[in-house]
Amino acid sequence: MNKLYVVGIGPGEYEQMTIKAANALKESDVIIGYTVYVDLVKEHFPGKEFMTTPMKKEVDRCVMAFEEAKKGKTVSMICSGDAGVYGMSGLMYEVGVSYPEVELSVIPGVTAATGGGAVLGAPLIHDFCLISLSDLLTPWEKIEGRLLGASKADFVICLYNPSSKKRCDYLAKACDLMMQYKSEDTVCGIVGNIGRDGEAFKVMTLKELRDTPVDMFTTVFIGNSQTKVINGKMVTPRGYRNV
Amino acid sequence: MNKLYVVGIGPGEYEQMTIKAANALKESDVIIGYTVYVDLVKEHFPGKEFMTTPMKKEVDRCVMAFEEAKKGKTVSMICSGDAGVYGMSGLMYEVGVSYPEVELSVIPGVTAATGGGAVLGAPLIHDFCLISLSDLLTPWEKIEGRLLGASKADFVICLYNPSSKKRCDYLAKACDLMMQYKSEDTVCGIVGNIGRDGEAFKVMTLKELRDTPVDMFTTVFIGNSQTKVINGKMVTPRGYRNV
Repeated sequence: MNKLYVVGIGPGEYEQMTIKAANALKESDVIIGYTVYVDLVKEHFPGKEFMTTPMKKEVDRCVMAFEEAKKGKTVSMICSGDAGVYGMSGLMYEVGVSYPEVELSVIPGVTAATGGGAVLGAPLIHDFCLISLSDLLTPWEKIEGRLLGASKADFVICLYNPSSKKRCDYLAKACDLMMQYKSEDTVCGIVGNIGRDGEAFKVMTLKELRDTPVDMFTTVFIGNSQTKVINGKMVTPRGYRNV
Repeated sequence: MNKLYVVGIGPGEYEQMTIKAANALKESDVIIGYTVYVDLVKEHFPGKEFMTTPMKKEVDRCVMAFEEAKKGKTVSMICSGDAGVYGMSGLMYEVGVSYPEVELSVIPGVTAATGGGAVLGAPLIHDFCLISLSDLLTPWEKIEGRLLGASKADFVICLYNPSSKKRCDYLAKACDLMMQYKSEDTVCGIVGNIGRDGEAFKVMTLKELRDTPVDMFTTVFIGNSQTKVINGKMVTPRGYRNV
């Protein structure tokens, strides 16, 4: 059977990859991915054939991976973080319907929520939501409903894709919505370049977050009503009862 | 500085640990954890000192880790999955206030949501929530509010701790709440023993899930309105527009 792995490589640095992910890449003849991610792993896997497609060419990239696997090569399609969290594994299953001879395996990885959480302290200890602020494929009303619903239910919220050139005011809009239910003093944090050069974090209030510029390499965390600051770190307790 | 790592070892099998986590354990003099997790890693790290405490002795376990680190040993406190998702890293920061001489680092891992998601297919591709059904430290009304809020906003939902001896009807109760907003035909999945002996998954509808017995080693996934079954796998598309 022709083998095709969809591999989450984690936040970026080689050491944050799982052993299973590294083994899949070692076993592969071809490693395919978005240019930035291929550049992150290249030096650790010498002698492999690397193929890239630019952003927004996701379907082409999936077809390319299946076509290579169909030729009999062992192929890895890489994604940053986890391949199943805003990643390529779903599209791979959809494209895979046309390639019954290829066996697809997904290898999970550390996603930005847990990778960034570890940098900030322990923001995700209790129930949390991941919400992407990108409205490229999701109507904004849907995103708005999620921000409101998650805030009302006192979830910790982790925002992916908090900003882009076209969406520079989206984080402020999201904060205004969340402040309908969450206190403006809610403990929040941002982490940039998780597991890569220039990794940095900052803890602040929700009100301060509203006016903080972020870029597309930033992951944003909004605490629940119990989240606090301990020694400069963002920490959510395990529950609502004193322990 | 005395070093203390809080290490997420991933779902269970050694290969699903990150390289960084394995390096931290190799570097440690002492590895501390709940008995079950220590047994999972023991054979891979010969020559280490292992210390365990039973379940519900979490504070004792944290104090034990800091006391060992205070003696000058390098210590790893291990958790299954990610140490920051219903894990020990929050409590470690709280206990750590009394041990300023110990430097705490959290090393993230693959949590059951992403580990189990990879087994099921690609259920978490879009916005999702993690909700624990354990009401040991959280009032049930809070959990109920989250199940309703997350269902109304059409999140994919991943349930941790879906059952225990005392809470054998909680999953049915949760499904009834979710069915107030989600169709009874919503695609769902369960995964047992992720990354361990006996790993198994099943895809079903929300109505079927309601009457499916699960144990504490099961992670439960409830799709959003777009989630579908492709070749027996549970797959959520990247958005609400055709791509």
